[in-house]
Amino acid sequence: MSRASARPAFVLARGKAPLHRQIYDHFRTAITSGQLRPGDRLPSARGLAQQLAVARGTVDAAYAMLAGEGYIVSRRALGTAVSPALPRPAAGRAADERRVPPAARDETRRALRPFQLGLPALDAFPRKLWSRLAARQGRALSAADMAYPDPAGYGPLREAIAAYLAIGRGIICGARQVVITRGYQGALDLIIRTLLRRSDRVWIEDPCYHRAREAFETAGSALIPIPVDAEGLRVSVGVAHARRARLAVVTPSHQSPLGVALSLPRRLELLAWANDMRAFLVEDDYDGEFHYAGRALPALKSLDRGDRVLYAGSMSKVLFPGLRLGYLVLPEELLDAFAGAMRTGNAGAPVFEQRVVTAFMAAGHFGRHLKRMRGLYANRREALAQALTAVFGDRVSVDLQPGGMHLIMRWGRRPGDAGLALKARAAGLAVDALSRHAIRHRCGEGLLLGFTNVAEADALSLCRRLEHAIGGDLRSTP
Amino acid sequence: MSRASARPAFVLARGKAPLHRQIYDHFRTAITSGQLRPGDRLPSARGLAQQLAVARGTVDAAYAMLAGEGYIVSRRALGTAVSPALPRPAAGRAADERRVPPAARDETRRALRPFQLGLPALDAFPRKLWSRLAARQGRALSAADMAYPDPAGYGPLREAIAAYLAIGRGIICGARQVVITRGYQGALDLIIRTLLRRSDRVWIEDPCYHRAREAFETAGSALIPIPVDAEGLRVSVGVAHARRARLAVVTPSHQSPLGVALSLPRRLELLAWANDMRAFLVEDDYDGEFHYAGRALPALKSLDRGDRVLYAGSMSKVLFPGLRLGYLVLPEELLDAFAGAMRTGNAGAPVFEQRVVTAFMAAGHFGRHLKRMRGLYANRREALAQALTAVFGDRVSVDLQPGGMHLIMRWGRRPGDAGLALKARAAGLAVDALSRHAIRHRCGEGLLLGFTNVAEADALSLCRRLEHAIGGDLRSTP
Repeated sequence: MSRASARPAFVLARGKAPLHRQIYDHFRTAITSGQLRPGDRLPSARGLAQQLAVARGTVDAAYAMLAGEGYIVSRRALGTAVSPALPRPAAGRAADERRVPPAARDETRRALRPFQLGLPALDAFPRKLWSRLAARQGRALSAADMAYPDPAGYGPLREAIAAYLAIGRGIICGARQVVITRGYQGALDLIIRTLLRRSDRVWIEDPCYHRAREAFETAGSALIPIPVDAEGLRVSVGVAHARRARLAVVTPSHQSPLGVALSLPRRLELLAWANDMRAFLVEDDYDGEFHYAGRALPALKSLDRGDRVLYAGSMSKVLFPGLRLGYLVLPEELLDAFAGAMRTGNAGAPVFEQRVVTAFMAAGHFGRHLKRMRGLYANRREALAQALTAVFGDRVSVDLQPGGMHLIMRWGRRPGDAGLALKARAAGLAVDALSRHAIRHRCGEGLLLGFTNVAEADALSLCRRLEHAIGGDLRSTP
Repeated sequence: MSRASARPAFVLARGKAPLHRQIYDHFRTAITSGQLRPGDRLPSARGLAQQLAVARGTVDAAYAMLAGEGYIVSRRALGTAVSPALPRPAAGRAADERRVPPAARDETRRALRPFQLGLPALDAFPRKLWSRLAARQGRALSAADMAYPDPAGYGPLREAIAAYLAIGRGIICGARQVVITRGYQGALDLIIRTLLRRSDRVWIEDPCYHRAREAFETAGSALIPIPVDAEGLRVSVGVAHARRARLAVVTPSHQSPLGVALSLPRRLELLAWANDMRAFLVEDDYDGEFHYAGRALPALKSLDRGDRVLYAGSMSKVLFPGLRLGYLVLPEELLDAFAGAMRTGNAGAPVFEQRVVTAFMAAGHFGRHLKRMRGLYANRREALAQALTAVFGDRVSVDLQPGGMHLIMRWGRRPGDAGLALKARAAGLAVDALSRHAIRHRCGEGLLLGFTNVAEADALSLCRRLEHAIGGDLRSTP
């Protein structure tokens, strides 16, 4: 392969400039042209020498020249990198330029901030047990695990989920109806690709989980926002205004974000509509297992005689989000269409996580963990509600639903929740504004506070931090 | 819940591949997987058209394709049926035995059959070493691993890949330009969602990797098939017929499936076109590391001074497919758009696999493994080519390219490769027909045989099995 003009493959031309000089030129050009930026890593000298089939000393010499001229720095264990002290190439991108590793750390840090919504109690997760299972699975890498996985998911996990759903959620289904997805997002992707044409009408709860809304908007669906009241989705409004829709997306157990449960009459009304119109329902049962007052409601899917419900479950809340595993229970008539879609667009989730989850379920840990978390979350919910009342007094009211993973702190109409959420976030608290979940219908002002990841002992001090950040704005409210 | 005795109803996915193509795919899969067997009846074209609410002609077109390829026969009054001349699928699999776990096992078994394309040498993978690293990572589950992962990927892995690309593929990039995807499919999904509007024109190689084609068809892109010759993609044909395209998808290292390399003049021509038109190029470098005669070509991306190339790499071939990990190197100007797309549609790959790969790379195992595999594959390639010649003699010719993971066995124009591939598959050999990769331009008949997973000691006996399955049909050919 001959060397093309300037920024080419890294091929040394024998018999031209000395080799170390060529290596030096290569990197100097990359740095001055901005292709390598301050902080970017260079290959290790040893690795590069091997690759180029030159003596290690040749690369060392080139690196020494570059270091001597201030282009690169050696950071011992961290390896060699472009000098962070160099000026940034293009002026404009200076301050806000996001290099990778800090961005990644931010992302994680953000995910772990107090009051974060939808994050299970990471501190109470049986990590040792999990790690033991993971290590055991890690030791047993089979050829089957290494090949392309079944896009529908790991068979034994599908069976374990079907068995769990019968007991835990009142859903009777065959394992072949269960397909493993990459979390709820993966499930939505699959549903959209398989069932929807652009401009198909889709009922969506208003207010709603914003990621679901985004997914359908991106797909070009015609979203029909249906208001929610104390009994959940107002099915009659949907029927009156958009009887002919292809799909409705609902959170019957604990409406997201209001937390109310869809009442039985509404459930039956919704199913009747779907049957009449041959529409489909997506039941997003993201945290149906977590119910504190009375029994958890069985899933909408358990009432689904007409086989219209696509039940979406997730391991993110009941285990942890880093798994990126969810599942769908599919109506019989959709099995082939989804099988086709999974063969093309999706090449399956990695088997390793699925094996560990299967082992966790098979040994009975899953049921025990859910039970423990229900108890823990009940206590944390109570503790956070009390702490809020203790700290804010009658300036706020606490909207405490019988289930779910967050509560809603409310006050009057002023001040707006968006500004308060911003202030709280600036103070490192991951609260969310209720109003930003609304689409067309008002749902009032409020702050959503996840309680599952707030230890009882921390509740009071965290509420004081919150008060410190936003209490001033609330003081004037009667 | 019960399934109808014959093939159950299926649902066409709207807005996906053309309807006749979906119907064709449906039955072809049913036949090749053994769900429909020789002699089984298909629904009448009229009845199926009614049931699916499509035009009768749509079903007729699909049936005509199936008949043309020998899958089905029309028997007038008796209706349409799976061709009785087809070999029975592997004995012993009663049609009704399809519960989930067997399906999963089938999937895996299918993936592990001899000659499987694109499957690295699983027998030669350093499993013990990998398992040790995996077990170590499994023991150390951190809170950060449990929370929602960074959708762009695990930072240290992005750095390790950037460092590797500099050495291995001549690509100088910062880690922030590297994003982790769920294999090449995940990368394509992301590219389509981020860069393309429906009906955008996309150059695609003809013949091409069928999954890429499917992904763009599903997205409603206007695919422009560009023929391929001994120098790779005929860029001038694309420029002449569809100068205004948004994207071109190419496999410059080893064209998929023909195996030819894109010549340097063509590379420069392609880059010049992209620069002129502000189009983007997707470089699918799925197996660029595996080159046996002469040096591996540096990536197209290494010549990309205008920053128009999205370089797509995958861990499926260099490590193993079960990881479901790939990556993209993005042009600077696309970083923000992709960051946005990743936040919505994609919630990142699980961290565990990424950590194990990072550990594998950091300890230098990756480079050593690639080097070992290059040697091993060179031997297996040679052995398979010799075995084919020994067994088939001058009835066939072997098309051996200097790189890649498969070779092509060719003969005259007759018999058609689809029928031969079907027979070989029925005998448990995962050969693929060349012609089915063609879109508009003929690329001849041939069988694609993956050599990477065929041990030298097995080459001869496997070729004999192949000869047993298809040799009779080739005998008459001069």
